[in-house]
Amino acid sequence: MAQKVKLSTIAERLGLSTATVSLALRDSPLVAEVTRERIKEEARTSGYIYNRRAASLRTSKSGIVGVCVHDIMNPFYGEILKAIEDELDRHRQTFVLCNHYDDLSKQRSFLDTMLQLGADGLIMSPAIGTPASDIRLAEDNDLPVALIARTVEGSGVASFRGDDAYGMSLVVRHLIAEGHRAVALVGGTDQTSTGRDRAQGYRDALAEAGIAFRPEWWIRGARSRHQGFDAAAEFLALPDRPSAVVCFSDLVALGLMYGLSRAGVRPGVDIAVCGYDDIDEAAIAMPPLTTVANGQSEVGHRAAGALLARLSGAPAAEELVLIRPELRVRQSSLLDFGIVNPSP
Amino acid sequence: MAQKVKLSTIAERLGLSTATVSLALRDSPLVAEVTRERIKEEARTSGYIYNRRAASLRTSKSGIVGVCVHDIMNPFYGEILKAIEDELDRHRQTFVLCNHYDDLSKQRSFLDTMLQLGADGLIMSPAIGTPASDIRLAEDNDLPVALIARTVEGSGVASFRGDDAYGMSLVVRHLIAEGHRAVALVGGTDQTSTGRDRAQGYRDALAEAGIAFRPEWWIRGARSRHQGFDAAAEFLALPDRPSAVVCFSDLVALGLMYGLSRAGVRPGVDIAVCGYDDIDEAAIAMPPLTTVANGQSEVGHRAAGALLARLSGAPAAEELVLIRPELRVRQSSLLDFGIVNPSP
Repeated sequence: MAQKVKLSTIAERLGLSTATVSLALRDSPLVAEVTRERIKEEARTSGYIYNRRAASLRTSKSGIVGVCVHDIMNPFYGEILKAIEDELDRHRQTFVLCNHYDDLSKQRSFLDTMLQLGADGLIMSPAIGTPASDIRLAEDNDLPVALIARTVEGSGVASFRGDDAYGMSLVVRHLIAEGHRAVALVGGTDQTSTGRDRAQGYRDALAEAGIAFRPEWWIRGARSRHQGFDAAAEFLALPDRPSAVVCFSDLVALGLMYGLSRAGVRPGVDIAVCGYDDIDEAAIAMPPLTTVANGQSEVGHRAAGALLARLSGAPAAEELVLIRPELRVRQSSLLDFGIVNPSP
Repeated sequence: MAQKVKLSTIAERLGLSTATVSLALRDSPLVAEVTRERIKEEARTSGYIYNRRAASLRTSKSGIVGVCVHDIMNPFYGEILKAIEDELDRHRQTFVLCNHYDDLSKQRSFLDTMLQLGADGLIMSPAIGTPASDIRLAEDNDLPVALIARTVEGSGVASFRGDDAYGMSLVVRHLIAEGHRAVALVGGTDQTSTGRDRAQGYRDALAEAGIAFRPEWWIRGARSRHQGFDAAAEFLALPDRPSAVVCFSDLVALGLMYGLSRAGVRPGVDIAVCGYDDIDEAAIAMPPLTTVANGQSEVGHRAAGALLARLSGAPAAEELVLIRPELRVRQSSLLDFGIVNPSP
């Protein structure tokens, strides 16, 4: 094990005061940037470790923000996380990630860890069933929270997400304008605000066009690509098979397209398929996927911005910030022959 | 802000000693599990926060393991992370994640954070160009490291990964057995051990069959789905277009298949395409993708196991643990008509 390098060692080597070295290592603007960089370089090469644990007991600031979502692997979160990271980087906050897999005890364990480490704040897409009290627990212990993608009623904190009901109504209206009157919905659940709102947008657009909602045409549950693939069989077995499908997410739509193709039903030719989220893959898929750009980057930037404002003393306020989504029309929903309308 | 709940408050409410409560909150086996659960429930409902920062200064153990990879969104890491999480869960370690995007300064910043928080250990897929000294810095400051997926020469620590050269030779041999003599390699780079080893396996299998390596048939660089899609145009422009392609990863292969399909060249019909990693999507893709199962789960379990052994006092040892990969043959490499051999 290397010999412990002290603040005074670095100060001595560079001919500076220990106060200057200490300030520089905490990125104080009181020290000129060129000097700061020289000090940090010396600290690095000499193996000096700034003891943030000890420091954080004095200042109650760890410089850490926790980010907790249900599945980091979901590309939907990719853009949100990049935007959050951009904001935090600019404010020299480190961020640590966690998956809760919609498991409340996993989420609580991460929340506890963040509290115990004295994290500065938390950005979370709350697990299904998160009680407002879990968020109050964090807030009451000086851990400000900003919510993304989902809302928790009574949490007292701000929530940032796309306007899911409006976005879903855009894509269903598009299908109706293309001549479809039988449109299935694949995926989603009543258990999250996202699922409820997207289903509501689907029903609203149908109602607007005077089309009755048929409960059997909502095939619930799918959220992953694999579940979308599995849902294809269920969809194909529907008695009056709809001529179009809107999916809960792009991942579900991409999986459904694999499943339909395998059964010989060609998306974009035999059937119209739409997704939701406009993940990077949507534009290069075969066929390219019609979907809804859900403002993920704006969600991330605004949630991180709101949290940083809280760290600077802004008060908490329960508010729902809805980002306006946009329709992206691609080949998967543009059938190149006359639609056979299978139902009234 | 809620009134601060003390250890003694919980002890009093439950009629237990503060020592018992303290032990229970640290998961000591000295306290019966049913009692521990009762104490934790009381701590939770009363809003008690165990101050791990203060505790970690006494014990030098934070209960945290950092995990740092180049891109958490890559499904290749999904299975590895699940396996790591399983192991750490069983040992009541919390894990926090970080993306370094192959950016050395990002990786260093996470490493510094882990050192400053007094993390117990680190599992990392090192960024391209990671010097052994960065890993020595962690080790010399009591932060044991285990490497996954990639190796750093001279790091003095164990590295766990699939046997990439052998795995790639399996898939190229399969294509040669299917009658191909012109096989392109798409993706990868000389800058990572993974890229070098997979390219070596490709060259070995060609040499074995007496086929000369043609440098222009290695289209380098692609690592993402989008880059695989972009590489399709480059591949299709090759003067003697090969009848088969092996890709650096499944993501690259899936993107390449999108790109080929868009150009009217059908994977699994007009051209054989293989991937590497056997991610979840490979089996449901259209066509289902021939690939190599790379033992990700075993990599995760063994790396986490080795790190936990280090935390229990086992010495560091530089060793490379290679997991044996397996070929998975699916439709994408099985052309259903006679192969036209475009080159000698």
